[in-house]
Amino acid sequence: MKIMVINGPNINMLGTREPEIYGSLTLDDIINNLKDYAKTLGIELETFQSNVEGEIVNTIQKAKNDCSGIVINPAAYTHTSVAIRDAIAAVGLPCVEVHLSNIHNREEFRKNSLTAPVCIGQIAGFGANSYKLGLQGLVDYINAT
Amino acid sequence: MKIMVINGPNINMLGTREPEIYGSLTLDDIINNLKDYAKTLGIELETFQSNVEGEIVNTIQKAKNDCSGIVINPAAYTHTSVAIRDAIAAVGLPCVEVHLSNIHNREEFRKNSLTAPVCIGQIAGFGANSYKLGLQGLVDYINAT
Amino acid sequence: MKIMVINGPNINMLGTREPEIYGSLTLDDIINNLKDYAKTLGIELETFQSNVEGEIVNTIQKAKNDCSGIVINPAAYTHTSVAIRDAIAAVGLPCVEVHLSNIHNREEFRKNSLTAPVCIGQIAGFGANSYKLGLQGLVDYINAT
Amino acid sequence: MKIMVINGPNINMLGTREPEIYGSLTLDDIINNLKDYAKTLGIELETFQSNVEGEIVNTIQKAKNDCSGIVINPAAYTHTSVAIRDAIAAVGLPCVEVHLSNIHNREEFRKNSLTAPVCIGQIAGFGANSYKLGLQGLVDYINAT
Amino acid sequence: MKIMVINGPNINMLGTREPEIYGSLTLDDIINNLKDYAKTLGIELETFQSNVEGEIVNTIQKAKNDCSGIVINPAAYTHTSVAIRDAIAAVGLPCVEVHLSNIHNREEFRKNSLTAPVCIGQIAGFGANSYKLGLQGLVDYINAT
Amino acid sequence: MKIMVINGPNINMLGTREPEIYGSLTLDDIINNLKDYAKTLGIELETFQSNVEGEIVNTIQKAKNDCSGIVINPAAYTHTSVAIRDAIAAVGLPCVEVHLSNIHNREEFRKNSLTAPVCIGQIAGFGANSYKLGLQGLVDYINAT
Amino acid sequence: MKIMVINGPNINMLGTREPEIYGSLTLDDIINNLKDYAKTLGIELETFQSNVEGEIVNTIQKAKNDCSGIVINPAAYTHTSVAIRDAIAAVGLPCVEVHLSNIHNREEFRKNSLTAPVCIGQIAGFGANSYKLGLQGLVDYINAT
Amino acid sequence: MKIMVINGPNINMLGTREPEIYGSLTLDDIINNLKDYAKTLGIELETFQSNVEGEIVNTIQKAKNDCSGIVINPAAYTHTSVAIRDAIAAVGLPCVEVHLSNIHNREEFRKNSLTAPVCIGQIAGFGANSYKLGLQGLVDYINAT
Amino acid sequence: MKIMVINGPNINMLGTREPEIYGSLTLDDIINNLKDYAKTLGIELETFQSNVEGEIVNTIQKAKNDCSGIVINPAAYTHTSVAIRDAIAAVGLPCVEVHLSNIHNREEFRKNSLTAPVCIGQIAGFGANSYKLGLQGLVDYINAT
Amino acid sequence: MKIMVINGPNINMLGTREPEIYGSLTLDDIINNLKDYAKTLGIELETFQSNVEGEIVNTIQKAKNDCSGIVINPAAYTHTSVAIRDAIAAVGLPCVEVHLSNIHNREEFRKNSLTAPVCIGQIAGFGANSYKLGLQGLVDYINAT
Amino acid sequence: MKIMVINGPNINMLGTREPEIYGSLTLDDIINNLKDYAKTLGIELETFQSNVEGEIVNTIQKAKNDCSGIVINPAAYTHTSVAIRDAIAAVGLPCVEVHLSNIHNREEFRKNSLTAPVCIGQIAGFGANSYKLGLQGLVDYINAT
Amino acid sequence: MKIMVINGPNINMLGTREPEIYGSLTLDDIINNLKDYAKTLGIELETFQSNVEGEIVNTIQKAKNDCSGIVINPAAYTHTSVAIRDAIAAVGLPCVEVHLSNIHNREEFRKNSLTAPVCIGQIAGFGANSYKLGLQGLVDYINAT
Repeated sequence: MKIMVINGPNINMLGTREPEIYGSLTLDDIINNLKDYAKTLGIELETFQSNVEGEIVNTIQKAKNDCSGIVINPAAYTHTSVAIRDAIAAVGLPCVEVHLSNIHNREEFRKNSLTAPVCIGQIAGFGANSYKLGLQGLVDYINAT
Repeated sequence: MKIMVINGPNINMLGTREPEIYGSLTLDDIINNLKDYAKTLGIELETFQSNVEGEIVNTIQKAKNDCSGIVINPAAYTHTSVAIRDAIAAVGLPCVEVHLSNIHNREEFRKNSLTAPVCIGQIAGFGANSYKLGLQGLVDYINAT
Repeated sequence: MKIMVINGPNINMLGTREPEIYGSLTLDDIINNLKDYAKTLGIELETFQSNVEGEIVNTIQKAKNDCSGIVINPAAYTHTSVAIRDAIAAVGLPCVEVHLSNIHNREEFRKNSLTAPVCIGQIAGFGANSYKLGLQGLVDYINAT
Repeated sequence: MKIMVINGPNINMLGTREPEIYGSLTLDDIINNLKDYAKTLGIELETFQSNVEGEIVNTIQKAKNDCSGIVINPAAYTHTSVAIRDAIAAVGLPCVEVHLSNIHNREEFRKNSLTAPVCIGQIAGFGANSYKLGLQGLVDYINAT
Repeated sequence: MKIMVINGPNINMLGTREPEIYGSLTLDDIINNLKDYAKTLGIELETFQSNVEGEIVNTIQKAKNDCSGIVINPAAYTHTSVAIRDAIAAVGLPCVEVHLSNIHNREEFRKNSLTAPVCIGQIAGFGANSYKLGLQGLVDYINAT
Repeated sequence: MKIMVINGPNINMLGTREPEIYGSLTLDDIINNLKDYAKTLGIELETFQSNVEGEIVNTIQKAKNDCSGIVINPAAYTHTSVAIRDAIAAVGLPCVEVHLSNIHNREEFRKNSLTAPVCIGQIAGFGANSYKLGLQGLVDYINAT
Repeated sequence: MKIMVINGPNINMLGTREPEIYGSLTLDDIINNLKDYAKTLGIELETFQSNVEGEIVNTIQKAKNDCSGIVINPAAYTHTSVAIRDAIAAVGLPCVEVHLSNIHNREEFRKNSLTAPVCIGQIAGFGANSYKLGLQGLVDYINAT
Repeated sequence: MKIMVINGPNINMLGTREPEIYGSLTLDDIINNLKDYAKTLGIELETFQSNVEGEIVNTIQKAKNDCSGIVINPAAYTHTSVAIRDAIAAVGLPCVEVHLSNIHNREEFRKNSLTAPVCIGQIAGFGANSYKLGLQGLVDYINAT
Repeated sequence: MKIMVINGPNINMLGTREPEIYGSLTLDDIINNLKDYAKTLGIELETFQSNVEGEIVNTIQKAKNDCSGIVINPAAYTHTSVAIRDAIAAVGLPCVEVHLSNIHNREEFRKNSLTAPVCIGQIAGFGANSYKLGLQGLVDYINAT
Repeated sequence: MKIMVINGPNINMLGTREPEIYGSLTLDDIINNLKDYAKTLGIELETFQSNVEGEIVNTIQKAKNDCSGIVINPAAYTHTSVAIRDAIAAVGLPCVEVHLSNIHNREEFRKNSLTAPVCIGQIAGFGANSYKLGLQGLVDYINAT
Repeated sequence: MKIMVINGPNINMLGTREPEIYGSLTLDDIINNLKDYAKTLGIELETFQSNVEGEIVNTIQKAKNDCSGIVINPAAYTHTSVAIRDAIAAVGLPCVEVHLSNIHNREEFRKNSLTAPVCIGQIAGFGANSYKLGLQGLVDYINAT
Repeated sequence: MKIMVINGPNINMLGTREPEIYGSLTLDDIINNLKDYAKTLGIELETFQSNVEGEIVNTIQKAKNDCSGIVINPAAYTHTSVAIRDAIAAVGLPCVEVHLSNIHNREEFRKNSLTAPVCIGQIAGFGANSYKLGLQGLVDYINAT
């Protein structure tokens, strides 16, 4: 089983950006830890990060070829991208939306997710752990269906 | 470490209610599975379900005495209860909000959570698995702080 | 056939409260008249009144055991209770919502009913007669299905 | 005692229109059944249907001459007609608003009734039975005042 | 110079309707007084009343043939009729909107006029006198242009 | 195959009304050209124009008898008529909504169409050509189903 | 009989300001013409203009001493001044609100008048003639009561 | 004279909860101080705290028997409880709403009070002193009427 | 200790204005009573009333020189004045907002206070007594800090 | 004459995506059919599809060089892209917006088009035929101007 | 060339007010620095500050006599004054709106400027430097036109 | 000191696009003039333009390496891009937002800037001069901190 892990805009700045807030983990660290965890689940990960909305759409479409599901942190595009929403709906793969921060206690516009309604579910607020929980939830979901 | 697990209104109807949709797991089944999982994490669970908003407030307050955190599915009260929100804020325990269904793709009024902003995070859409993921996320959080 | 008749908060104040407006009928009077009327329809009534939202949820759940339908005046909870809405949907019994006053010509917030969408229908504005009409409508509905 | 029964736009399509949903009763059937029921109450009915808002206004005005009350299903005009609202207020006859379907669980714009605030009350969701219940409620109201 | 005077729905009920509020003047009285006043201005009036939105549209279109302007009390249609708005704009005649009551201190929905933006101006609140003032204002406007 | 072509309020003013804007084509011209075009498609047209909302409802209902589809320009009623919407839904004929002007770049209230959701589709902004394109689209749709 | 005529902010700029739009009449011209007209009605005028909201409040209060009514063009304060609204309500004098332009076809925020609900009525759109019509309407109102 | 003093949800957490913010006064301290103050006014207090909305409704109803007025801090229910609002209106006792914090400078949803419109008045922002001021205001009001 | 007491627009009309509603107390009476009360608290009052928003701003700024706090009834400016809000925030003096009437049960626009968020608190609905309670609350606050 | 045909995000998934809903036509099929149709009109097509908003902007700008008009299906970007709107306005070419589905009967957010106001018109709901009708409408428009 | 520099309410408190936030520059300091800068541009400044909305209107009107443009910091009146907006539009002088703070990241109500739409442009967030940049921008604009 | 100057979508069309409105300056002209001006300030510019939102995010991130600040005209993305907002916040460089036109007097949706709250300030309406003023303001800000 292969899972696509997609990260949206500015997630590539982790670690070098306000480390006292976001911790010193870089995106590479998160991805490497997640890959280790994936191994314990017996699954393979393909990972992708882009600041370009349309490239994320491209990658979701591409996942249809050889992935069983998607873990996505759409970051800023969570709140503005109908295109990513439509891509998730179009490929028909089970998808889990994750967020590092608790988007429900930030600016009003971050409470609404355009993408969550076409996902299995949403996990927000657990820092890097959101990815692990999301991957676990996705794999359990795939195994159960 | 003891964790309080709180379920809100109508969760006690699981299993006997539209089993073709919600599955045949009863609330007792979910709780028992969760207790088994808790044992593997080396923690103890105290569980509570009520249809009365104020009794949920009472239980949150009581958790302050001997629990290290709370996993709560406020169900219908998620969207209407300032009292539960204030209780969570008042006790100051780390709290994780979980939902069986993906509240982001249901009626408009279910998208807004009054309680999530005072929790660590929210997990929605994974069925009974939401509790497991939530417990895992809470325990990891407590261990990390 | 047994029908559960549920009254929400402050309905127990009828008769002693502003009788020049609401008339001198007490809730007991209304219930007794309704029971007489039920006899003419050959059905039995179980009645319940509470000011506590969660106890109304409890009673709706309990009705599932031995009642064929519910007549409910959720009163103030009409406009605020997702929990009662979910309870009605969960038990799957046919339910009729009744109101003493015409809620459509009062404060703006009383126009919206959270519970009516999960009921067969709503009857408002006929005073104590709303209960009779609601019971009649419910029984006709059950007999026709 | 004579009661005016008014039906708004498209009600004349009943029976021939999606009979699996609305049943095979035509408007004529409903009216005939209602007239039979009226006889048991010892009252006379005058009936009217039109797709033209202004003709419904005309008929409400005309009812002032020899009717004691009005049962009206304004259908689509429920949500858009200030003219019908003003007509009901102008003639000062007691009026009951009825709906075949439960307008509270349909499109958002059908929840608001411009006419209900000037009626005694509103009955919605009981199919053809809504007319019977409405007529009963109106006659009881007139007899009580 | 001929002026078309148009009255919308329910204006034909004046005098017989709540005379303690609206006075004992009927629409005929108002029209006759207005015709007397028109004579002193040396102008002719054509008058029309209908409860049917489309007939008011017809009459506005017809006015194009031989009238120099329009005085209109669209009554309830003030707040709901894009059709009357479009008709006034289409004929290109100067038009004055008048109201018996002060629509600005009634229900919220009466504050908005769909027709006023395509008129020269609006006069509201002077009872039958609103027509006289409107006619005067219209004639002065026509004479000045 | 016969198609009903319905025009709403004020469309009968075309040609004589602001010809520098709307062109010098009258409604008759448009209809005649459309009939010529229909002949090339081998279909028959029945046409109707009215300023009265309810008469348009009547005509939609009548179309059920012998027409295979409807091309409608509801004009002003596009934005206010639930009655026309319900009529289209009730007759169950395929219907195409057309507009002379681009309603999406005019007043805010013209952007919303109450009728388009129950049509196959909407064509706006091509002047008289909107009718031709709409007829073509409708006929292709009917032939394909 | 003495009438107070009050003009709000920027009305003192008339004539020198965009004369091609507002005409070449200055506020003095308007006032002088209005005084001539007042003489024909046998009444006296006191006039006041200020750009200061509070001075307009002062003048409304002062009018209570020796005036029978008020004609006011609150200009920009129409849309923002609760203080002027409260002053009009407090003195209890009949008051007519006038506007040079048709405020109903300008920016959205100019459609709402905070002051009109406490006036007899509102006249808008007739240029300098709005004052004459307003004075006439006010005097007729006072004479009739 | 006896006054009922009611405290809503989570007020029982005072003192033990974030003492650096809310001070070290417990609810017991506040109540005892208030009782001392009541003695100086020659009145008796009955006090009640609950986290359950319906029990607060019960207590308001019970106050009708032997109390002359109510001082209530509805806490979280201020913003969500139509039931408490209706209870206050139903018993017809003079009631004063008090808040420890200044609810006008907190979250947007705390600005609206459902209960204040049926009270004499509202006092917010003075900490424990709000109760004293509220009691004083209530007693003065009762003595003056 | 000196306290500045500021009254906004139209408060100077008290007593002569609708005495059956507002009582026969003039603003002078209220101020004199308040001064007597202040003496019992051992403090001095400076008082100011103006209908001009900017003069109220001036007076708030001036209070910074020799006053320890402010009691303000901004009246109509409560709902419209960002300038008074900014002035209170700028001088940094503790400030109490008082209202004669219960602004929470009047027009919708009176519910929102622009000034309350920068005050210690708000007291509304106790008539002239609101000033006494406000002064008491302010002095207690100053003494406690 | 050359026309640019632009397709937005996820349109490249047609055919392989839910063929029972969208049909088995791929984007290639649609484009090929459209090119055949273009030949019958004697015009040339240039076609472009991208999931990247900015590349669509690039292509619109490039069309200025050698195209006479644009047919665009902005898909998801219809509802979110001010950039595409500005690009269409900047190049000044006549543009027709087309949609496969009837966007007026889907989610609320799909009803609003940011791009339609700067186009000649919009065609929605005819499946692949929307492109043909749009191309026809565009060519007719260009030929007529 | 003479430029009018206008400062609105509470700007006169600069320097003595929270110097750790706003700096120790007083309004006099800012004005003096700006005058020095104006000299380098070869222009003269006239300056004015008031807390009274109407006096700012007066000063804008007066500027028409001998000034070539206006630099205005309307402060609190930015968000509430239609009167100042109308004054700027009436005098027809080029006007630049400046703000010390970045009004776009403060309270929601500070984001909307009633005055900016009638100015050349708006400069916000540069502290005292906003005035310099505004003056520069205004002079460049005047010289270019 | 090096400053990054970023231009968003369609800014590359300047000069060739509606020169009678936007002037004949191309983006190259603006950049060259700005570079000349930068030299007089003793600073270096790096410039970038893209129609792709994500490439603008990339460039903002890259600026962190060797630039001291950013001048950005996000153009259409001002109103829709949370991604650019997050990028500016993430890099922590001082940033100034500039606009050629006065966005405050255009379409309603252009009034709101998602990016301005994370910038030092915003300058709008001065044409090409907005860049100069923005650069000046940025450099002054950097030198002062």
